[in-house]
Amino acid sequence: MSAAEVIAALKARGWMMATAESCTGGLIAGAITEVPGSSAVFDRGFVTYSNAAKIDMLGVSPATLDAHGAVSEEVAAEMARGALDRSAAQVAVAVTGIAGPGGSDHKPEGRVCFGLATGVAVITETVEFGALGRSEVRRRTVEHALSLLLRAAGDEAGFS
Amino acid sequence: MSAAEVIAALKARGWMMATAESCTGGLIAGAITEVPGSSAVFDRGFVTYSNAAKIDMLGVSPATLDAHGAVSEEVAAEMARGALDRSAAQVAVAVTGIAGPGGSDHKPEGRVCFGLATGVAVITETVEFGALGRSEVRRRTVEHALSLLLRAAGDEAGFS
Repeated sequence: MSAAEVIAALKARGWMMATAESCTGGLIAGAITEVPGSSAVFDRGFVTYSNAAKIDMLGVSPATLDAHGAVSEEVAAEMARGALDRSAAQVAVAVTGIAGPGGSDHKPEGRVCFGLATGVAVITETVEFGALGRSEVRRRTVEHALSLLLRAAGDEAGFS
Repeated sequence: MSAAEVIAALKARGWMMATAESCTGGLIAGAITEVPGSSAVFDRGFVTYSNAAKIDMLGVSPATLDAHGAVSEEVAAEMARGALDRSAAQVAVAVTGIAGPGGSDHKPEGRVCFGLATGVAVITETVEFGALGRSEVRRRTVEHALSLLLRAAGDEAGFS
């Protein structure tokens, strides 16, 4: 999975993309924009590290944050939808997770929730990367986010 | 210059930071958030790759973009001020440049404009990194942005 493949798929589809990142802190946008010509498909990114940023920048509901915590599929979905609605993009990917070190019984280190929004659907998923260390969890989270974008861009139904 | 040094200086000062990134596409935020505990000082980041994103997310003036182009100290200043005003941060750093490949007679590859805003001042500067290649220009731009943040956080006058 490479950022160049994602960009090619988005170009083929005529789509722009946006990102909403918590635990990766900008690295998904960084990976996409490493490719020359990425400006054709990358519109903007939201690095919403604090809860206040998730609320202000993406319209995540404080009630959702209270009920489920920042690392939840519910919040990932609202982040993705918020990024889509606040951009010129046709697809937005969101990540929120616990890169570590640390975690809790309920939310272990290495858990990352993903959201992917298009005009027709929002899907969410959770991946338990495990306690691989902060850098490796972040690296794998970027890879997984790219794979989700590729899947969405390649799906003729828009995303289903 | 390391992100950890910047974080320590910001913590010592009791400051939060924000980023506004064009050519680095999230890598400054990514470098800061690579350090465990960075959530104590990193509030949010704006990855404003398109001109529309600079206008929508940071309040950059279309007139400024028209008059000076996206890669200008004028736009860098408005990006930095916009990020400061739209965050809980006491200092914001902004970058806009031509990572390459490509450029023009007027705006050569490797030119990057920086903005740094605090509550008391906005400063701007331009660095000509030269045609070192996209990755290297972006890497050096991140380094330089971190050095500006360290300078601001370490300046007892706030920033002068």
